[in-house]
Amino acid sequence: MSPLRSDWSESRCPVARSIDVVGDPWILLILRDALLGSRRYDQFRRSLGIADNVLAKRLAAMVEAGLLWKTPYRDETGRERQEYRLTRAGEDLMPVLHALVLWGEKHRPAPDRDRLDIVHTPCGARTTSADRCDACGEALTPETVSWTRPWRRQPVTPLATAETG
Amino acid sequence: MSPLRSDWSESRCPVARSIDVVGDPWILLILRDALLGSRRYDQFRRSLGIADNVLAKRLAAMVEAGLLWKTPYRDETGRERQEYRLTRAGEDLMPVLHALVLWGEKHRPAPDRDRLDIVHTPCGARTTSADRCDACGEALTPETVSWTRPWRRQPVTPLATAETG
Repeated sequence: MSPLRSDWSESRCPVARSIDVVGDPWILLILRDALLGSRRYDQFRRSLGIADNVLAKRLAAMVEAGLLWKTPYRDETGRERQEYRLTRAGEDLMPVLHALVLWGEKHRPAPDRDRLDIVHTPCGARTTSADRCDACGEALTPETVSWTRPWRRQPVTPLATAETG
Repeated sequence: MSPLRSDWSESRCPVARSIDVVGDPWILLILRDALLGSRRYDQFRRSLGIADNVLAKRLAAMVEAGLLWKTPYRDETGRERQEYRLTRAGEDLMPVLHALVLWGEKHRPAPDRDRLDIVHTPCGARTTSADRCDACGEALTPETVSWTRPWRRQPVTPLATAETG
């Protein structure tokens, strides 16, 4: 991604090829926010507390890598701006984020024991797999998953998809 | 991890708390190598083509974070050295690596179509889930998983565990 970093895009190992795209903390956090419905530059910036140059660089890299695509909208002043929406390749990273959720809740639990639950919406079951419903065995997709975060005013967030997101 | 980086260790979001530990390309690649059986400094260095100061810093951070633990061995000259073995918390990151494998094979396939397959050893089935066997539904653990990499002279590698690793 950056000329200062190793290039793993041609590695024989798929772990390395994926890391070449998402081996960056900000990119993973931007993906998380995109799945939670953020689309606009200011939404990402407010949620992440990220410096402008860092955010702009990451969004451009994610569009270039095919994780997000840009589409115009008009802001309240009538000025044209760009929204960032998930692509299929972007939403296919949901299991990576889920695997991080599950590890974090097990090995780095929050002090107040609040936890993010991954819920398979069609059957209502909380799952302990990154990509399958524990209860019915169905493969998870953003269309069928909500994240429950009890510390939020609106605790249940259905994930955004390449269609809606 | 680094004082130059944001600290997400106290975040309410488990994705961020996990990223605080593993949101680094080298740490993920060292974990991959540890699961593939590497234990010694020189094994990691040779496999990764990584600068000495970078590798030493990452290994120390991983021990500090509880992903690896150190145990002494004597090298061929009789000098005492340290081996790095996986902890339970380290091996519990296997699904993160699997999710990266599955995304990489789908969205960044190798030009020669060689692919890494995740095999559930007890039933011999290739799985498309990060943490469950497609065929029998059992939860995957390093004890029950092999990675098949056709480009290697010995293509099938049973994963190392906190016990054996």
